Amino acid sequence: MSTQPQPWSQRFESALHPAIARFNASIGFDIRLIEYDLTGSQAHAKMLAKTGIISPEEGERLIQGLEQIRQEYRQGRFSPGIDAEDVHFAVERRLTELVGDVGKKLHTARSRNDQVGTDIRLYLRAEIDQIQQQLRQWQRTLLEVATPHVETLIPGYTHLQRAQPLSLAHHLLAYVEMAERDWQRLAQLRQRVNVSPLGAGALAGTTFPIDRHYSAQLLGFAEPYRNSLDAVSDRDFAIEFLCAASLIMVHLSRLAEEVILWASEEFAFIQLTDTCATGSSIMPQKKNPDVPELVRGKTGRVFGHLQALLVVMKGLPLAYNKDLQEDKEAIFDAVDTVTACLEAMTILMAQGIVFQPQRLAAAVNSDFANATDVADYLASKGVPFREAYNLVGRVVKTCLEQGKFLKDLTLQEWQALHPAFENDIYERIAPQQVVAARNSYGGTGFAQVRMALEEARRRLNDF
Amino acid sequence: MSTQPQPWSQRFESALHPAIARFNASIGFDIRLIEYDLTGSQAHAKMLAKTGIISPEEGERLIQGLEQIRQEYRQGRFSPGIDAEDVHFAVERRLTELVGDVGKKLHTARSRNDQVGTDIRLYLRAEIDQIQQQLRQWQRTLLEVATPHVETLIPGYTHLQRAQPLSLAHHLLAYVEMAERDWQRLAQLRQRVNVSPLGAGALAGTTFPIDRHYSAQLLGFAEPYRNSLDAVSDRDFAIEFLCAASLIMVHLSRLAEEVILWASEEFAFIQLTDTCATGSSIMPQKKNPDVPELVRGKTGRVFGHLQALLVVMKGLPLAYNKDLQEDKEAIFDAVDTVTACLEAMTILMAQGIVFQPQRLAAAVNSDFANATDVADYLASKGVPFREAYNLVGRVVKTCLEQGKFLKDLTLQEWQALHPAFENDIYERIAPQQVVAARNSYGGTGFAQVRMALEEARRRLNDF
Amino acid sequence: MSTQPQPWSQRFESALHPAIARFNASIGFDIRLIEYDLTGSQAHAKMLAKTGIISPEEGERLIQGLEQIRQEYRQGRFSPGIDAEDVHFAVERRLTELVGDVGKKLHTARSRNDQVGTDIRLYLRAEIDQIQQQLRQWQRTLLEVATPHVETLIPGYTHLQRAQPLSLAHHLLAYVEMAERDWQRLAQLRQRVNVSPLGAGALAGTTFPIDRHYSAQLLGFAEPYRNSLDAVSDRDFAIEFLCAASLIMVHLSRLAEEVILWASEEFAFIQLTDTCATGSSIMPQKKNPDVPELVRGKTGRVFGHLQALLVVMKGLPLAYNKDLQEDKEAIFDAVDTVTACLEAMTILMAQGIVFQPQRLAAAVNSDFANATDVADYLASKGVPFREAYNLVGRVVKTCLEQGKFLKDLTLQEWQALHPAFENDIYERIAPQQVVAARNSYGGTGFAQVRMALEEARRRLNDF
Amino acid sequence: MSTQPQPWSQRFESALHPAIARFNASIGFDIRLIEYDLTGSQAHAKMLAKTGIISPEEGERLIQGLEQIRQEYRQGRFSPGIDAEDVHFAVERRLTELVGDVGKKLHTARSRNDQVGTDIRLYLRAEIDQIQQQLRQWQRTLLEVATPHVETLIPGYTHLQRAQPLSLAHHLLAYVEMAERDWQRLAQLRQRVNVSPLGAGALAGTTFPIDRHYSAQLLGFAEPYRNSLDAVSDRDFAIEFLCAASLIMVHLSRLAEEVILWASEEFAFIQLTDTCATGSSIMPQKKNPDVPELVRGKTGRVFGHLQALLVVMKGLPLAYNKDLQEDKEAIFDAVDTVTACLEAMTILMAQGIVFQPQRLAAAVNSDFANATDVADYLASKGVPFREAYNLVGRVVKTCLEQGKFLKDLTLQEWQALHPAFENDIYERIAPQQVVAARNSYGGTGFAQVRMALEEARRRLNDF
Repeated sequence: MSTQPQPWSQRFESALHPAIARFNASIGFDIRLIEYDLTGSQAHAKMLAKTGIISPEEGERLIQGLEQIRQEYRQGRFSPGIDAEDVHFAVERRLTELVGDVGKKLHTARSRNDQVGTDIRLYLRAEIDQIQQQLRQWQRTLLEVATPHVETLIPGYTHLQRAQPLSLAHHLLAYVEMAERDWQRLAQLRQRVNVSPLGAGALAGTTFPIDRHYSAQLLGFAEPYRNSLDAVSDRDFAIEFLCAASLIMVHLSRLAEEVILWASEEFAFIQLTDTCATGSSIMPQKKNPDVPELVRGKTGRVFGHLQALLVVMKGLPLAYNKDLQEDKEAIFDAVDTVTACLEAMTILMAQGIVFQPQRLAAAVNSDFANATDVADYLASKGVPFREAYNLVGRVVKTCLEQGKFLKDLTLQEWQALHPAFENDIYERIAPQQVVAARNSYGGTGFAQVRMALEEARRRLNDF
Repeated sequence: MSTQPQPWSQRFESALHPAIARFNASIGFDIRLIEYDLTGSQAHAKMLAKTGIISPEEGERLIQGLEQIRQEYRQGRFSPGIDAEDVHFAVERRLTELVGDVGKKLHTARSRNDQVGTDIRLYLRAEIDQIQQQLRQWQRTLLEVATPHVETLIPGYTHLQRAQPLSLAHHLLAYVEMAERDWQRLAQLRQRVNVSPLGAGALAGTTFPIDRHYSAQLLGFAEPYRNSLDAVSDRDFAIEFLCAASLIMVHLSRLAEEVILWASEEFAFIQLTDTCATGSSIMPQKKNPDVPELVRGKTGRVFGHLQALLVVMKGLPLAYNKDLQEDKEAIFDAVDTVTACLEAMTILMAQGIVFQPQRLAAAVNSDFANATDVADYLASKGVPFREAYNLVGRVVKTCLEQGKFLKDLTLQEWQALHPAFENDIYERIAPQQVVAARNSYGGTGFAQVRMALEEARRRLNDF
Repeated sequence: MSTQPQPWSQRFESALHPAIARFNASIGFDIRLIEYDLTGSQAHAKMLAKTGIISPEEGERLIQGLEQIRQEYRQGRFSPGIDAEDVHFAVERRLTELVGDVGKKLHTARSRNDQVGTDIRLYLRAEIDQIQQQLRQWQRTLLEVATPHVETLIPGYTHLQRAQPLSLAHHLLAYVEMAERDWQRLAQLRQRVNVSPLGAGALAGTTFPIDRHYSAQLLGFAEPYRNSLDAVSDRDFAIEFLCAASLIMVHLSRLAEEVILWASEEFAFIQLTDTCATGSSIMPQKKNPDVPELVRGKTGRVFGHLQALLVVMKGLPLAYNKDLQEDKEAIFDAVDTVTACLEAMTILMAQGIVFQPQRLAAAVNSDFANATDVADYLASKGVPFREAYNLVGRVVKTCLEQGKFLKDLTLQEWQALHPAFENDIYERIAPQQVVAARNSYGGTGFAQVRMALEEARRRLNDF
Repeated sequence: MSTQPQPWSQRFESALHPAIARFNASIGFDIRLIEYDLTGSQAHAKMLAKTGIISPEEGERLIQGLEQIRQEYRQGRFSPGIDAEDVHFAVERRLTELVGDVGKKLHTARSRNDQVGTDIRLYLRAEIDQIQQQLRQWQRTLLEVATPHVETLIPGYTHLQRAQPLSLAHHLLAYVEMAERDWQRLAQLRQRVNVSPLGAGALAGTTFPIDRHYSAQLLGFAEPYRNSLDAVSDRDFAIEFLCAASLIMVHLSRLAEEVILWASEEFAFIQLTDTCATGSSIMPQKKNPDVPELVRGKTGRVFGHLQALLVVMKGLPLAYNKDLQEDKEAIFDAVDTVTACLEAMTILMAQGIVFQPQRLAAAVNSDFANATDVADYLASKGVPFREAYNLVGRVVKTCLEQGKFLKDLTLQEWQALHPAFENDIYERIAPQQVVAARNSYGGTGFAQVRMALEEARRRLNDF
C-alpha cells in the first residue's frame, strides 16, 4: 500500500488501515467496467478539448493514452491490484504514467460520482441489448419447437388438475408471450438507463464550461440528466433492471417446473436427452433434469439481488453515498445469472427434451377434461350454463363410481341424463375436437394457434 | 354454510370443513373489487347478446340486474358473508335471485379465472391513474416550495459530509425528477395492465363464438391477450406495479430521511409545524417527525409485498393455480400505502415544514464546501487539476489546524501557496458565487435552476 | 378530532391535519393488543404502589379501573375511534374518566416506548405458545397418518425422478422432524421475547425508584432488559419470530407441493375428499387442492413480512423511532397466516386426503428405483462400488432399450453381466425388500421406521 | 470435457453440451469446501473399515490418499478444472489416481447428497465458531471505548429528536447487548448445524451395516439426523444462519448510521481518523466515512441472500433437488460479508473515531432534553404526572418563544408556574444530574452504567 498514495491523500496524514483498504476497495469487481471507463473518459476528454477547457493536443494525448490502456488490458498487461482502490484511480494513475502530467487534467470538471454512474450505465445498456437478443433467440427456439406440434395434444391444467386438453404449440406460445413482455420491459427501462450523468460532477455540476449534451451524444446517450443531484444518486435504472430480470426468471422458472414435472416417470411427457441431463453418484438408473432445477433455484438469487438493492437505496439522503458501491455486484451477478439461464433453457428446449406423442395422446384420452364441453353442448342448446354445469358434475361423479370415462356412456345413458343429447355428443367430446372447438381469439383451437404462430413469426422477423 | 351450496357442489357429496371454507374464502378482501366485477360482467353480458349467444332481452336483464346489485351495494344493502366464498359467486347468486334463471346464463363462455383477472386489472388501472394524479400533485407541491428558494443556499452532501453548497430549489427539484420517472414507469406498465383476459376461459378459450375484442373495447382495454393460457396465469403486471410502487417509496423514504435530519436540533434547517408533528407521552418538549418516519418505515412493507408476489409466482406451472389468490391483498395494501404516503408527504411539504433561512445561511458560510472551487480556480489558470486538488488538500489541513476557514486566509497566504492566486479568489469562494458558478447544464447555478423550474412547470402544465 | 386533545398537545398550538392524524393513528390495528396493554398497566400500577411512588389506594383504584375497561372491552362497550391515536392513549383516557385524576398517575415512570414494547412481547409470547401447541398437534396428526403405513411403499424421489422406494411412514416422519426443529426454534427465540422492557422509560430509564424486576416477574418475564436504550429499540425478537414463521411455511409449502403432485391424475397417489377440495366455476369434473395451493402461496406473504421488518430496522439510529410502529401489522399477519395454515394443513392431512395403496404399489413395482440395490449387491460381494455402479448403469440402459425392468432379467442374463450374481438377486430387488434392507440408522427400513415412530410418539407424550 | 468422463456416464450415450456442463458445474465455488470434504471422507472411510464394510488396510489407504490430496491442495498442486463438475468428483478421481481401485470403494454406502450436506455443515460450523469469536472481540472493543466515557454525556434521541441526555458508555453498551443476542443466536442455531447427515445416502439410508453414530462422532457432530429424507433435504440451518447474519448486519448498520451522523459537520460528535476515512476525487476537503457507509450498504446484500435461500426452498418436494446447490454461494458470501463488516467496524471503533467531549458537552447543555425531569420533579411532589407534563409543555413553548432554555428561568418564574418549585430545581435539571438521576435498573444513571460495564466485562471474561 505504501508506494501508491491515494489521489485524495493530501489532506490525510496517515495511511488507511490495510484491512480497511481491502474493505473499501472495489477493484476486485469493478475491473469489469474498465472498457466502459475508458470509453467514458475518452468522450470526456474529447468534450474538454472541444469546449477549450484543455487544448486539442492535450485532448488527443489523453485519448491516445486511454486507448493504449485498453490495448494493454486486452493483452493482459494491465491488471491493477488491491492498492488501486478502484478501476477509475487505476486508469488515471496508469494514464499519468503513460502521458505524463497531462494525465492529471483528465479529471477536470468530473468527479468519480458522475464517472462511475456513466460506466455502470454504459455496461448495463450493453448487457440489456445482449439480453434482448437472447430473448429473441429464446422465442425463436420456442417457435421452432412449437411449429410441428400444433395438433399434438397435451393436458391443460389448472390447480395441477387436468382441466381441458390443449394444443402443445399453444402451451409453448404462452412462453413466447411472456418473453415478449420481458423484451418490452427491457426496451422501456433501457430509456432510463440511457441517460448521461456525465458532467454532474460530485453532485452540483461544475464551474467549467462543459458541454454535457456533446459528451452524452458521443456515448450514445439519449440525453443528459436534468438535475445533477439526481444524476449521481439515482439507481432506479438498476432496480428496474433487477425487477425485469426477476420477471424473466419467474417465467423461466415456470417452464422449468413444467419440464421437471414432464420428465417425471408419472408424467413422462418428455424424455431428457443426454446433452442436458446428469446422473447420480449412487443410483445408476437416474437421469436428472439439473438444468431446469438450477434455473428454478437461481430464481431466488435474482430476487435476492433486487431486494438487496432496494434495501441499499431505502432512506439514503442525497446525494452520493458509498452504499451505492453495492449496486455493482448485484447487477453483475443478475446479468450473469439471467444470461446463463436463458442460454441453458434455450439449449434445453432445442436439444435437451423430446416430447413423447404416444404418452401425450394416451393422457388426453383418459380423463374428464372434456366435461366442460358437455356443459357447453347443453348450454348451446339453450340449457342455462349453471344448470348444464351441475348436471355434468353429477354425470362425472357417476362415471367415477363406475370406472368409466364420458366417451364410454351410451346414447341412452346420455339421453336419460338430458333429452337434449344427440349422437353428435361423441364427436364433441373427442379430445381433438375439444381442442379444435376452442376457437375463440387467443384460444387453443388449431386455427387460432396457427394464426398465433404466424403472427409471432412475423413479429420476430420484423425485429 | 349449509343453506348456501357452492356453485361447484354437484360433483361433491359432503360439505367443506368449516375451517377450510374460511381458509379458502376471499370474500373478506375481494369485496373491494365488486364494482369492477359488476362492470366486467355487464360488458360480458353485452358481448354475449351482441354475438347471439344469449338473446338481446336476456342480455338486457342481466345488465339491469347487475346494475341493481351495484345500487344495493352502494346503499349498503348488499354485503355477502363468508359463505359466499368470493365476490364473484356472491354476485352471481344475488343476480339469480333478482332476475331468475337467466342469471345462470351470465357465466356462459367465461370462467372465474378470466373473470378475476379482468376485475383486478380494472381495479389496478384505476388506481394507477389515481397515483399518477397524486404524483403530479406531489411534483406541483415541490415546485411551489422550491420556487421562492432558488437563491436560498443549503449545504450539499456526499457521504453526509458537506460537499458543495446548493440552491435549495435545486435540491428539491431532484425529487421532482424522481417523481417524473415514477410517473413514466406507471404510464408504461399501465400498458401491460390494460390488456383484457376476458374470454380466455379457464385456460383454453371457449367453444362459444365470443368477441373478445368487443368486450375488451367496452372495458377500455387496449387489446385482448393473445394467448389464453398466458391470460389467466400472468401476474407480471402486478409485480411490475409493486416494483414501481417500491421505487416511489424509495424516493419518498429518501426525502423522509432528509426531513428527519433537517428537523434534528443539530441540523435545524427546518421547523416542524404543529399540523404534521406529534409529541411524546412523557417528554413535554418533544416534537416528533412522525410522518417521515412512518413513510420511511412503510417502505419496507411495500418491498415485502413485491417479494411476496415474486415468491408466489416462482415455479408455478401453467395455468391458473389457487396461489394466485394471494396477489390481491399485496396489491391492495401496496396501493393503500403508496397513496397514503404520497398524500402525507404532500401535506408535510406544503404545510408541515418551514425552512430556516438564517440557519441555512450560517451553515453554508462555515465549512470547506468551497474547496473544490479553489482547485477549479487553479485548474482554470492552467494548473493540472490533480495538482491543484492536492495543493488545496494541504490548505484545508492547515486551516483546520489553525481553526480557520478558507475565506479567512490573507492574499499573502494564498499567494504563498501558489502564485496564481489573485484578489478575485475571495469572490470565487463566497457561497453565493460558488453556487452561481456551477452553471453547467443540470447544475446548481441559479440560471440553470431557474430554467429547470420553468421547464418542470411547463411539463406539469402540459399534463 | 377537535374534542379529544392529544395528551401531548400542550406544547402545540394548532391541531394535526386530519389526514395526518389518520396516517399516524395505529388504533385501527393495535386495538388487538388491548388486553395485553391492560395487563401490563396493572403490573405497572402494582409496582408503583409497592415502591411507594403512588399510594396503595391509588394503586388499587388504577388496577380496578383497568379491570373495568377490560370488562367493557370484552362486552363490546369499549371501542375507541381514530381520534384515540393508539390503544395506549385510548385506555389512559378511559381510565381517567372512570377513576378520576388518579388515572393521570398511571403513566408515572413509564413511556409509550417501554409500554408498547411490553404489550407486543406479551402478545407474541402468547401466540408463540399457541403455535407451539399447534405444531404438536400437527406432529400428532402426521404420526397418526403414518402409523398404519409403515409397510405402504411410495416412490422416493430426488430431482423429482424416482430414486429409491420408501416406507410411506418414513416419508411422513420427515415432516415430523421439520416440525420438531420449528418447535425448538420457537422455544429458543421465546427466551428473547420473554424479556421485560417495562421501566426503560423513553430510552434512558427513570428518576423514580421503580422495581423493574418486580414488574417483570408479575408479567411472567424471565428478566428485565439490561440496557434501557436496547430495551426500547430492539425488535430482534420480532424478526426472529418472522424467520421461524418463514421456516414453518417452507416446511408446509414442501408438503403442500407434494400433496398437489400426489393429487394430480399423473401421480394419483391420493384422492382428495370433499371436506378439503373445491370445484371449478366452469369445469364440472374438477376437484382442486385449494388448501395446499393457498398454503404454498401464503408462504411468500410471510417471507415478505420478514423482509419488511428487516428493512424497517436497517440503519435506524437509537433509540425509538416511529418506523417501529410498522412491526405490528407484520407480526399480526404472520401469526394469523401461520396459525391458519397449520390448522388447514392439519385438517387436510387428517381428513382431506386418502392414500391409494393400489396405485402406490403399482408405482413402486414398475421402475428402476432398485438399481442401487444391484450395485450394493455387487459391492457387498467385493466389487468396488464405482465399478458395480457403472455396470448397473449399462444394465439399465439395455433394459430401457428392451422395454424391461430389472426383475425381468433371467439369471443367465444376470450372470452374463457379472458372475457374482446368484439367485438371491431377485429377492434383493423386490421393492419390499429394497426398502426393508435400508436399515441403517434413520433409514427407511421397516425396523428403523417402527423405532422412529415409537421415538416420536414418546417425545410427543413427554411434552 | 472429452477425456474426463463423469462418474455417472455409463447410462449415458452422448456427452453433455459444453455450455450445460459449465452451467451445472459447481467446482468454481465449492472448491472452498475441499478440506471439509477430505475430512468428511476420511471419517467415512474410517467408519467403513470399523464396520468391516471394507478392510482395515483399504481404510488406511483411503485415509492416506485423502491426506495426500489435502497436502497437494495446500501446496497449490491440486486445482481441478470445470470438467470436474464438483469438488466431490474431483477428489474421488484424484484419489483413484493415487491409491488405485480401492479409491472406487470410498463412495460405498454414501451418496453425494449426504456427502455435500456433511461438507457444508462442517464448513458453516467452523465459520460460526469464528464469527462468535469476532462478536466477542467486537464486544470487548465496545467496552474499551465505553469505559472512560461513563460520565461523558451525549444527547439521547427518539425520533432523532433530542430526548434525554445519556452516558456515552450507556449508549455504547446497548450495542454490547445486541451482540450478546447475536452470540446466543449463533450458539443456539449451531446445535442445528451440528447434526450429521452422513449415512443418509441418497435419501433412504443404505443397505450396508454402517455406523452413523460413529462417523458423526469422528466429525464432532452431536448426533446423526433421525430421518434420512430430512437429512438430505434440510436447509433450515442455512436459513437460520442467514437470519442471524441479517440481524448482526441490522445491528452494525444501526451503529454505522449513528457514526455517519456523528461524523457530519452538524453533529460533529466525533472526528474520523485517517486510518478509516477516505477522501474525494474532486473535493479536497472531504473526509468520508466509507466504512460505516459500506457496512450499511452491505446489509441489503445479506438480507438478499436470506430471501434468496428462502425462495429456493419454498415448495420443493422431497428429497434432494439440484436447486439446493444454490445454498452455497449465498452462505459463502454472507459469511464473508459478516466477517469483513465485523472486522471493519471493530477497527473503526478502536482506531477510526475520536469522540469530541467539548462538542458533546455543548450539545447537552443547550436543549430541552431535561424537560422530563421538570415533570418528574413535580410528579415527585404529588402533582399527577399527566398534569405536570402538560404544565412543562407550556413552559417549553414559552421558553422557545423567548429564546431561553429551562436553566435560564428565574426562581420567581418557576414559582409563578407552580408553587411546588423550589431552588433545587436548578440542580435537578443540570445535564449531569439529569443523567445521574436515571438510576433505575438498566437506566443511564452513572451507578447503573458502572455496574453494567462490570457485569459485561465479567461475562466476557467468563467466556
